[in-house]
Amino acid sequence: MEKGYIQVYTGNGKGKTTAALGLAIRAAASGMHVYIGQFIKGMHYSELDILEKCRYLGDHIKLKQYGKDCFIYNKPTEEDVRMALKGIEDLKSAMKSGVYDVVIADEINIAVYFKLFSEDTLLDLMRSKPDRVELIITGRKATEKIIEQADLVTEMKEIKHYYTKGVQARVGIEK
Amino acid sequence: MEKGYIQVYTGNGKGKTTAALGLAIRAAASGMHVYIGQFIKGMHYSELDILEKCRYLGDHIKLKQYGKDCFIYNKPTEEDVRMALKGIEDLKSAMKSGVYDVVIADEINIAVYFKLFSEDTLLDLMRSKPDRVELIITGRKATEKIIEQADLVTEMKEIKHYYTKGVQARVGIEK
Repeated sequence: MEKGYIQVYTGNGKGKTTAALGLAIRAAASGMHVYIGQFIKGMHYSELDILEKCRYLGDHIKLKQYGKDCFIYNKPTEEDVRMALKGIEDLKSAMKSGVYDVVIADEINIAVYFKLFSEDTLLDLMRSKPDRVELIITGRKATEKIIEQADLVTEMKEIKHYYTKGVQARVGIEK
Repeated sequence: MEKGYIQVYTGNGKGKTTAALGLAIRAAASGMHVYIGQFIKGMHYSELDILEKCRYLGDHIKLKQYGKDCFIYNKPTEEDVRMALKGIEDLKSAMKSGVYDVVIADEINIAVYFKLFSEDTLLDLMRSKPDRVELIITGRKATEKIIEQADLVTEMKEIKHYYTKGVQARVGIEK
C-alpha cells in the first residue's frame, strides 16, 4: 500500500468491532497482512474460530488479546494495566515490523477511558505509525485529541437497539 | 438461532458494508449460513475473492450482486430495475428457504432512494422475514418507515473523512 491513514470508529452504536473485522477480512482477501490487538475483551469470540477454520485467513491475520472484560465492573488491576501496556508495545512492533499493512487497535479508546494507560500513550502510538501502515482504532469515547489526530472518524450512533427488548448478546451475531 | 431481528446500518459515514461483511464472517465462523445480496455495486470487490480463497467461508456465505454502479450518475435503466427486483425475490426465497440464518440486503436503502423499487417493496420484504432469520439492511438514506420497522438501527456518522485529502478508494481497504 502506498500510503496508510488512521481511521477511528467510535460512538455508542453497534458495528465498531464488526467493521474492523470486516476491514481485516477485506484487506487479507486482497493479500495484505493484518495485526489485530484486542484490548478489554478477553472472551472467546467467534472471529477467533475463523482464523483456525480458514488457513488463508490464519496466514494473513494475526490476532492477540490484551485484556479481560471484568474490570469494566471492577477497578482495573495491576495485571490489567500490564497486559494493556504489552498491547501498546506489540502494536508498535507490528507497525514497525514491515510485515503488517493494517494494524487494528480494537477497543483501545476504552482502555484510555478506564485509565489502563494515558491518552498521551495512545497519541504517541498514533504518531509512531509508519507512512505505509493503515491504523484502525475502535471503541466508544474517543477523545477530542484522538479525533483531531485521525484522518477518518466515523461515529456509530445508536438510533434504536433491541437490547431494550431484553435481547442478550448472541453467539455468531454479537460475539 | 432462536429468534432473529432486523438490523439497519445507515448514515453517510464509512463502515456500513464493512460491518455487514464482518457480521457475515462472524456468523459463518459460528457455523451459520449467510446470504448476501448486494444492490447497486456491481464491481469486483475484494470480499468476493475471500469466498473463493477460503472454502469454509465459500460453503457458508452465498453472495449475489443485483446491480451496477453506473446509474448513480445516470438514470436507472429498465435492466437496473429488473435486476433489483430479482434481488428482492431472491432475498425472499433465501429467507424462506430454511438454509440461511442471516440474510444481508447490502445497499438496499440506496435502491429505494434511486426508485429501483418502492419503499413499500422493502417494507414488504422486512415483513416477510421468518422469525428465526436475522435480516441486515444497509445503505444511506434509510427512510423513517424502514427505521420504524427495524429492531436495531445504527447510524454511521461521518465526523472526519480523508476523501477531503483527495484519497481515492483503495483496493483491500475501501473496496
